[in-house]
Amino acid sequence: AVASPAIAQSAPEIKWRLASSFPKSLDTIYGGAEMMAKQVAEMTDNKFQIQVFAAGELVPGLQALDATSNGTVEMCHTVSYYYVGKDPTFAIYASVPFGLNARQQNSWWYQGGGEQLGNEFFKKFGVIGHPCGNTGTQMGGWFRKEIKTVADLSGLKMRIGGIAGQVLQKVGVVPQQLAGGDIYPSLEKGTIDAAEWVGPYDDQKLGFQKVAKYYYYPGFWEGGPTVHAFTNLEKYNALPKSYQAILTNACANANSWMAARYDMQNPAALKQLVAGGTQLRPFTNEVLDACLKATNELWAEISAKNADFKKSIDAMQAYRSDEYLWWQVAEYTFDSFMIRSRTRG
Amino acid sequence: AVASPAIAQSAPEIKWRLASSFPKSLDTIYGGAEMMAKQVAEMTDNKFQIQVFAAGELVPGLQALDATSNGTVEMCHTVSYYYVGKDPTFAIYASVPFGLNARQQNSWWYQGGGEQLGNEFFKKFGVIGHPCGNTGTQMGGWFRKEIKTVADLSGLKMRIGGIAGQVLQKVGVVPQQLAGGDIYPSLEKGTIDAAEWVGPYDDQKLGFQKVAKYYYYPGFWEGGPTVHAFTNLEKYNALPKSYQAILTNACANANSWMAARYDMQNPAALKQLVAGGTQLRPFTNEVLDACLKATNELWAEISAKNADFKKSIDAMQAYRSDEYLWWQVAEYTFDSFMIRSRTRG
Repeated sequence: AVASPAIAQSAPEIKWRLASSFPKSLDTIYGGAEMMAKQVAEMTDNKFQIQVFAAGELVPGLQALDATSNGTVEMCHTVSYYYVGKDPTFAIYASVPFGLNARQQNSWWYQGGGEQLGNEFFKKFGVIGHPCGNTGTQMGGWFRKEIKTVADLSGLKMRIGGIAGQVLQKVGVVPQQLAGGDIYPSLEKGTIDAAEWVGPYDDQKLGFQKVAKYYYYPGFWEGGPTVHAFTNLEKYNALPKSYQAILTNACANANSWMAARYDMQNPAALKQLVAGGTQLRPFTNEVLDACLKATNELWAEISAKNADFKKSIDAMQAYRSDEYLWWQVAEYTFDSFMIRSRTRG
Repeated sequence: AVASPAIAQSAPEIKWRLASSFPKSLDTIYGGAEMMAKQVAEMTDNKFQIQVFAAGELVPGLQALDATSNGTVEMCHTVSYYYVGKDPTFAIYASVPFGLNARQQNSWWYQGGGEQLGNEFFKKFGVIGHPCGNTGTQMGGWFRKEIKTVADLSGLKMRIGGIAGQVLQKVGVVPQQLAGGDIYPSLEKGTIDAAEWVGPYDDQKLGFQKVAKYYYYPGFWEGGPTVHAFTNLEKYNALPKSYQAILTNACANANSWMAARYDMQNPAALKQLVAGGTQLRPFTNEVLDACLKATNELWAEISAKNADFKKSIDAMQAYRSDEYLWWQVAEYTFDSFMIRSRTRG
């Protein structure tokens, strides 16, 4: 792409529009884009302004990437696994079942070759991605009845989308695609039996605790999902180098900001949920083992017909093996002791 | 502080000097400052340049903070626990025994009130701090003999500094202060029995595996230490607002960068160490419990005579309790399953 004359100067006035996939009410995940835009404005004395539009204001939330690809907007803030219908490879750079935790996902992207692989793939859709938020490990969702065995999942109607839905389908779940606002009434009426969303802070806002008693963990399909900012590649390439650097640094800052903010907000929400009667339940090893087996089967099936997917999933899995080899030594044993000593007061 | 006329313009040319506490050979921890400075330069078309000097080039590594306080340099890149001799409160914003893991330390700083408390304290020394790197949980160090009980620590001469040394002294260790370059010969000669440094990647470079067989974990005194960039407060306040924002975002980016890079580098180093005969050993619960007890005693002693310390340690510990309440649910059970399933292949 060639820089347009209008922005050949070193600090031009630029106004961009960003389409978020999230409603304003989910202030932390939506807020990641606003935080990033605020940093860009402050770093440029308001010369580079990015106006953030909530899902539906310009385009529906799940069309944020298309609107960026085709230049309707310059940027979007979204989760790449929403676009597995175009290509399942998208999911790997956000989060896939039994993938990486948040810090490992960042390490893979920033230092382990993920950025090169990911942006090589995203280029096919005319965009460049920057991590711009992470939720940390999500919860496994809300269930109206207890799930102890794989047999308990049989025929269970669960709101869960994308590639995680495909995995759960292999163990008997009937995945349902529902927009955020439709989940609560469906759970209440019993049209669905279970639903996953994000974690305590966001889930509490949507009120799921009033219509489902059991709150399962961990959300093994989202160990540490990245929320990306995607920028139309031509628009990005036409920016002055200093603005590209400013955008990159603002996204990196927002990437940490979102995880830090969820980590601040989730404990209070969790305490309130439990005080209100929510029953926390871990997925049993039987369930987790069956889902891991289903996941590995699905990766083999997709890899057989999709070279991009194979390249990315193989790279991610090799990185994951090394990461957990190290993680289990210092990080995990530190956390283990801190958790054990905390409950002893 | 009043902006000086020279930098009243919106994008002035500025050249600063930064004193690092680290040698260039420790490329990741030293590299955090270079990475930050590179971002600042790129974001300003090289108008704002920060030249990074290794430990000893301008001032000795452990005088980096003083040189920043007194204006010899505008910035430094250092670990605040090096300065516990001035005030033990410094340690809390880097890492204290049984403190926070890396993501929690970030959450406390960015979202949990840590930044306000920390910078209120740092202001007394004429500096403002920005997190600019994190090593993740460190290793517990190299021991020439196995440590199974608290009795095994009695009289053990260990290279460990600062407040962690004070904790270990309470359980019988004789802490030794040694600069990085003096550790290897001291361990080799048997002048010391043990030494802690950072983690596999850095430790391997210093060659400790050749002179001590047992490599203990976790480094419970450094669950997720922050490396700070400190800026002389008057110099910072005199910067244009846009440059303040640029510096802040560059530090946030470097903060993630360092953790991502250590996470990438440590697995390979760990594999090489183990292949070379290093014996990994976890600290026993008896040792950890005794050290936690000693830590809590030390906090009570210091808090009784230091109001700043009490305010900060109380805030950190309250935050820690909430963080681990949440961490044990989704993050920890995800990591647990991933570690368990990894070893089954």
